[in-house]
Amino acid sequence: MTQPKKLKLGIPKGSLQDATIALFEKSGWKIRMHHRNYFPEINDPDIQCSMCRAQEMSRYVETGTLDAGLTGKDWILENNSDVVVVSDLVYSKVSNRPARWVLAVAADSPYRRPQDLAGKKIATELVSFTKSYFEAAEVPVAVEFSWGATEAKVVEGLADAIVEVTETGTTIKAHGLRIIAELLQTNTRLIANKAAWEDPFKRKKIENLDMLLQGALRAESLVGLKMNVPEEKMPAIMNLLPSLTAPTVANLYNKDWLSVEIVVSESLVRDLIPKLHELGAEGIIEYSLNKVI
Amino acid sequence: MTQPKKLKLGIPKGSLQDATIALFEKSGWKIRMHHRNYFPEINDPDIQCSMCRAQEMSRYVETGTLDAGLTGKDWILENNSDVVVVSDLVYSKVSNRPARWVLAVAADSPYRRPQDLAGKKIATELVSFTKSYFEAAEVPVAVEFSWGATEAKVVEGLADAIVEVTETGTTIKAHGLRIIAELLQTNTRLIANKAAWEDPFKRKKIENLDMLLQGALRAESLVGLKMNVPEEKMPAIMNLLPSLTAPTVANLYNKDWLSVEIVVSESLVRDLIPKLHELGAEGIIEYSLNKVI
Amino acid sequence: MTQPKKLKLGIPKGSLQDATIALFEKSGWKIRMHHRNYFPEINDPDIQCSMCRAQEMSRYVETGTLDAGLTGKDWILENNSDVVVVSDLVYSKVSNRPARWVLAVAADSPYRRPQDLAGKKIATELVSFTKSYFEAAEVPVAVEFSWGATEAKVVEGLADAIVEVTETGTTIKAHGLRIIAELLQTNTRLIANKAAWEDPFKRKKIENLDMLLQGALRAESLVGLKMNVPEEKMPAIMNLLPSLTAPTVANLYNKDWLSVEIVVSESLVRDLIPKLHELGAEGIIEYSLNKVI
Amino acid sequence: MTQPKKLKLGIPKGSLQDATIALFEKSGWKIRMHHRNYFPEINDPDIQCSMCRAQEMSRYVETGTLDAGLTGKDWILENNSDVVVVSDLVYSKVSNRPARWVLAVAADSPYRRPQDLAGKKIATELVSFTKSYFEAAEVPVAVEFSWGATEAKVVEGLADAIVEVTETGTTIKAHGLRIIAELLQTNTRLIANKAAWEDPFKRKKIENLDMLLQGALRAESLVGLKMNVPEEKMPAIMNLLPSLTAPTVANLYNKDWLSVEIVVSESLVRDLIPKLHELGAEGIIEYSLNKVI
Amino acid sequence: MTQPKKLKLGIPKGSLQDATIALFEKSGWKIRMHHRNYFPEINDPDIQCSMCRAQEMSRYVETGTLDAGLTGKDWILENNSDVVVVSDLVYSKVSNRPARWVLAVAADSPYRRPQDLAGKKIATELVSFTKSYFEAAEVPVAVEFSWGATEAKVVEGLADAIVEVTETGTTIKAHGLRIIAELLQTNTRLIANKAAWEDPFKRKKIENLDMLLQGALRAESLVGLKMNVPEEKMPAIMNLLPSLTAPTVANLYNKDWLSVEIVVSESLVRDLIPKLHELGAEGIIEYSLNKVI
Amino acid sequence: MTQPKKLKLGIPKGSLQDATIALFEKSGWKIRMHHRNYFPEINDPDIQCSMCRAQEMSRYVETGTLDAGLTGKDWILENNSDVVVVSDLVYSKVSNRPARWVLAVAADSPYRRPQDLAGKKIATELVSFTKSYFEAAEVPVAVEFSWGATEAKVVEGLADAIVEVTETGTTIKAHGLRIIAELLQTNTRLIANKAAWEDPFKRKKIENLDMLLQGALRAESLVGLKMNVPEEKMPAIMNLLPSLTAPTVANLYNKDWLSVEIVVSESLVRDLIPKLHELGAEGIIEYSLNKVI
Repeated sequence: MTQPKKLKLGIPKGSLQDATIALFEKSGWKIRMHHRNYFPEINDPDIQCSMCRAQEMSRYVETGTLDAGLTGKDWILENNSDVVVVSDLVYSKVSNRPARWVLAVAADSPYRRPQDLAGKKIATELVSFTKSYFEAAEVPVAVEFSWGATEAKVVEGLADAIVEVTETGTTIKAHGLRIIAELLQTNTRLIANKAAWEDPFKRKKIENLDMLLQGALRAESLVGLKMNVPEEKMPAIMNLLPSLTAPTVANLYNKDWLSVEIVVSESLVRDLIPKLHELGAEGIIEYSLNKVI
Repeated sequence: MTQPKKLKLGIPKGSLQDATIALFEKSGWKIRMHHRNYFPEINDPDIQCSMCRAQEMSRYVETGTLDAGLTGKDWILENNSDVVVVSDLVYSKVSNRPARWVLAVAADSPYRRPQDLAGKKIATELVSFTKSYFEAAEVPVAVEFSWGATEAKVVEGLADAIVEVTETGTTIKAHGLRIIAELLQTNTRLIANKAAWEDPFKRKKIENLDMLLQGALRAESLVGLKMNVPEEKMPAIMNLLPSLTAPTVANLYNKDWLSVEIVVSESLVRDLIPKLHELGAEGIIEYSLNKVI
Repeated sequence: MTQPKKLKLGIPKGSLQDATIALFEKSGWKIRMHHRNYFPEINDPDIQCSMCRAQEMSRYVETGTLDAGLTGKDWILENNSDVVVVSDLVYSKVSNRPARWVLAVAADSPYRRPQDLAGKKIATELVSFTKSYFEAAEVPVAVEFSWGATEAKVVEGLADAIVEVTETGTTIKAHGLRIIAELLQTNTRLIANKAAWEDPFKRKKIENLDMLLQGALRAESLVGLKMNVPEEKMPAIMNLLPSLTAPTVANLYNKDWLSVEIVVSESLVRDLIPKLHELGAEGIIEYSLNKVI
Repeated sequence: MTQPKKLKLGIPKGSLQDATIALFEKSGWKIRMHHRNYFPEINDPDIQCSMCRAQEMSRYVETGTLDAGLTGKDWILENNSDVVVVSDLVYSKVSNRPARWVLAVAADSPYRRPQDLAGKKIATELVSFTKSYFEAAEVPVAVEFSWGATEAKVVEGLADAIVEVTETGTTIKAHGLRIIAELLQTNTRLIANKAAWEDPFKRKKIENLDMLLQGALRAESLVGLKMNVPEEKMPAIMNLLPSLTAPTVANLYNKDWLSVEIVVSESLVRDLIPKLHELGAEGIIEYSLNKVI
Repeated sequence: MTQPKKLKLGIPKGSLQDATIALFEKSGWKIRMHHRNYFPEINDPDIQCSMCRAQEMSRYVETGTLDAGLTGKDWILENNSDVVVVSDLVYSKVSNRPARWVLAVAADSPYRRPQDLAGKKIATELVSFTKSYFEAAEVPVAVEFSWGATEAKVVEGLADAIVEVTETGTTIKAHGLRIIAELLQTNTRLIANKAAWEDPFKRKKIENLDMLLQGALRAESLVGLKMNVPEEKMPAIMNLLPSLTAPTVANLYNKDWLSVEIVVSESLVRDLIPKLHELGAEGIIEYSLNKVI
Repeated sequence: MTQPKKLKLGIPKGSLQDATIALFEKSGWKIRMHHRNYFPEINDPDIQCSMCRAQEMSRYVETGTLDAGLTGKDWILENNSDVVVVSDLVYSKVSNRPARWVLAVAADSPYRRPQDLAGKKIATELVSFTKSYFEAAEVPVAVEFSWGATEAKVVEGLADAIVEVTETGTTIKAHGLRIIAELLQTNTRLIANKAAWEDPFKRKKIENLDMLLQGALRAESLVGLKMNVPEEKMPAIMNLLPSLTAPTVANLYNKDWLSVEIVVSESLVRDLIPKLHELGAEGIIEYSLNKVI
């Protein structure tokens, strides 16, 4: 008798962990961490979850220890891992801006370009990628692995420059540093082992997972909008509505009015509602969405 | 002049307290705890709330100190209370699995069945129920009241076995124990005093409360799903949809498409959406529900 | 080249801060506090936010340091500021009752009316307003600024009475005090500088902001209700529904039933649902709203 | 080959735990709790520690599961355990006043004496002791086990009186209660199993432990005082000093002065120092003591 | 029958509270705060404690509501209170540097001296003192009461300068400010009401309190040092020892050596010990002191 | 004009940080961390402190970025740094047992010796040292850098063995692992740059620092013991006392008794005191020591 087939899925431990588990919950999978959390419980008999550092994930997916996993584009490149990139999942722990690995120096230093750092010492957690970057630029530098608190190293006199990840640049600036180059934009990726991707059961499982994760992510920036519109105002209203999806229209019990329902980007709503109101829409309501496929 | 009639309602203090207050909020009643919390405030002039230990609740409902209350089936049985069981409300503080009182022994002990414990010492908070259980099984044991940390008692050498409540069994196992019997499944119950149940005002109040509590609980596992479907794909889509309730269908402004809306179990969604998508449904959105009656 | 025009908007720091930022988020503006939070980031290029104590806000709006701001009616009066009151925004940090500034004395003191305090010492943070109140009443009292913990001052023997803000009166009572007069009901207000209000760009911006803030606030006490109704029961159901807005009605795929959807006050739902159910409505669902305009 | 002999010692879990471990540390034994704390580590190969609820301790010492333990006099009486009382160790978690189990009723109730409660319901955690107390007084009452938050039961209308432990009476009063009788003063006790007490190895171990625990406790209320005194002032100074122990006197390098050193109660120091100073003592220093035997 | 005489003593609430209570504990008085802390308990029947804001203390001492109290020199001056200054007690919540009220402006502003601020707006909590300061300097400025977060006001554009208290200047600098003048050094003071100071009982009580508080404060910067010295090295060692108090010298059992004991400033120890060691002192031990009178 | 000479001293950031700062405080140096903590403040004008990861410390000392620093023996070896080892300072964050880097495998695996791991994958933070260890043993293994949570890697199936640091072995065991070899015992070390060690000013500074640090560490395990002894019992008592240092003896004012004072290991006290008491010593007191040189 054979073991039922399972997708071995890596969930990133650490800074992305809570956001990832929340995204899975919105997508339809509940992951429960137990106190001794080697294998978190997931309510899907076809999946076995493992917690794994984002830094190490692609290594384990490449060698097949895991079939698929979520990790950052940065660490896939740092590890130079040969994996299938299924999709980009843009979510983060702090802001909605993309995370960037930047080269930063003391604000009051003379360095303006990467070339100015020839012969200098650079501290970073992304050692291989940084070395490649400077080799490609033909700038000889000493790249040292930083065990953390990298931003402080320049001010402390322990390094001449750093390569560090940032979303808003606030922390970099607060440490008295100046960004002189952006080396890499990064975001979370769903990756798969090459052999697993060729296995129909596993591929189908990964693709469905991807569809739901994307649907839940998309829903975060969209909302449902519903309003009542007098029939004669309909053309003007329709002109105003963004064309993302066709609106759903129904007659009101009171026959001269229509009910109009659309899905729109949440960021447009604050400008759209005053205009809709001016054009005669009434009873405008906005509601949240869990998924949009 | 007479006092306005009020339903005296017991809210369980302790581990179920937050979940209960949250459930009431979803059901339409806001309960606010004050610092000296003898009588929490509730936004319903017909109800007076009291906080009360789940262990003692049925005692107070039985004697009429309270008209109704929420507590566990386990403690109703332990107290052997003569009350009206209005309904079962399945919610818990940890997981969605039912809580069970189990008989557990040291993992490396020779005990395999309750019968093997003849002459031994059993620690539990559920003393009366446990005594009855072993008397019915005609196994003579010494049952001792445990003041807490019951799971540790076997390893500490203070008892031969324990009877303790668990949802997932994780804590039991983590203490080096092995479950050898399940004595009782339990869940929260809405109970009423017998005389209060015969009073029309109080009974109506309890029944309405029950309807809304059930409606809020049901909504936790259901979601609304809305999608646009080409008219010709409608039969295939209808075949796929679970038959819980008839879908609501409306025509889109663009006449060849229909808008379809259903309420489905959240646990089905991750399998349903990929199939709906494959059959041609578009603009699929999912939204949350507060109550489903 | 000119600087792009911006609305300088004051956000109240302190007890109202979290509630205000949450309200803005629901209204469509994300405000992000940074560690050194002089100027919180807002996702609207037309607005520049400043954090500012509620007590000082109207001073800065009056002099034009800020174009608009949110603060309490109490502090506008205390500062006697000449500003445009755009609207009242009733939300608070604790309850849904209006906050009131009350005059309170020791529970066991002989004082029953403000007049009884002639010649006595009153501690308060609202010094100017309190002085005006007693002057208008022609009761001579000494009003002293209280640096905090005002409720304790009477029991500690440091004052004869206090003027303090309260929502439920619980804290006042818990300090052994008795309320003998209410001096002022207060709530949050959106205020504008007079010159800014005459500037078309700024006024439009403030009005739109107001519309969305009001819409988000309104949504907090309303919910959407949707149900399926047999056609012949429609008149009875329609009679029962509150007339806030006309219901949206659509035919079900199964032709003898109608889908009915309304927006109602959340506080009515727990009474409405049992009646709808009795009249034959089925598949009643309730869902939350983000905004209602 | 035989197991080395060990004293099985029970440490009270819960409210006394931290104070007990701190007292042992001052006495010379380091107890370290581990995450799964069945058997805390102690730096003495002759002792094996167990954590055990104070309520259950005397039961386990009586039956020999433990050789000795620390627990309250109250729970020894409640369990009616036949054990050796080695000594009283007066320390507590809150104040330096002895803890007392008191009978308390609503402040505004008519009850003035235990006799007034005939036929009433009394809630307590100390059921057996309370029953005995009222039986001895020949007052028939119903005593019910309280699962906690006992102080609230009278105000909540769930009991007519309570028997509860208190040090300062503050909590009792804050719950609107009035104390009408003191049933029992209690403090921590070191107790031993009768057989263990007859075993010379174990008895010696328990006695030494007792000597050091007493020495550490005594040191908490004593301090060392050292001062320089002109020889001719010596008699006056000697008269003033409490006679607890003879002072240690040495000559100063500068021959006309003496160095005087004593151990005194800390509570006397604030009155003693001004007088010593007046009498001519100089360079008065006070230092802390770890143990005083 | 008369009430026993008591000293009404004000303890500063807020930032100095914990440090003050700790200092009293070291001095010999235990102050215990209760949950409703109008009158903290003190273990001295001659004293009744009140908690009181440092800002208001001198007002209450001046009018005799309190007999004595601890508060800052700054607030005594701000309130312009006519009280007896018994002594300065130099302790603080952060560092051991004196707290200073400074005038600070934006680091990149052109202001260099107080005179440069003529016609500008200054925010501070110390309004009266600041007004007097500028009046004395004949610089016309607008001084506005700041409700807190004063350091942020300049950067936020709400004020041109601030007057704020600081110990290290770190926070001032971190807010992008530059100090251009020091207006006042402040520290805690023990103050007394003038009439209370004339009452022999109260004055004696205040003086003894002062002696012990000073003794405990002094002990914080002193330590006891004890060492064994060969008799022939005694002169060299004696030369080295600071002359604060004469050392205590005793003969060792082994007659050629002396035991030498002194009290020295803790800050000298790290330099003194290596020198003593070099000169032949052995068995050098250092111990802490609770009080030095 | 030249800069005053300073010793650049590295303080380990992270797990050893608090223990190190506490040790310096006991030794006579106060280190204060500021919010932006590049250069913590130290109350010695001759020293400039830097915070630095223990893992990187020896690298910075070797190259002269720092003159001296405290770090672990393990990381000095891992970095293979050429520095002066001034002394071993045995203190830790958890227990008083030495920390050890051990090789651990799954408890139920067949591996018994390092040799059994030939061809396997080993996860560790100590990559270089581990590689050298296995090369010396001529066992070919793959050593992978672990980004943390190393103990979980074997159970998670991500590695075959780990090399990890432990004091008690408890965590290792709790993760289901078995230790099969100890690779290295480690402790904190004071290290110096080779050139700095040749500089007389810096060397003197380092040596004095070392003397005081050692003195403070030694004091942690020693206490002072003082007692009164009848002259005739003196020989017996002297026989019993450990010979660490000669006792200080003085005559009591009451001439037949002697005062005896010694410094002894705290761990001996609990056995010594009962014996001293039995031999007739009285008024035995124990007190703490800050430093013992």
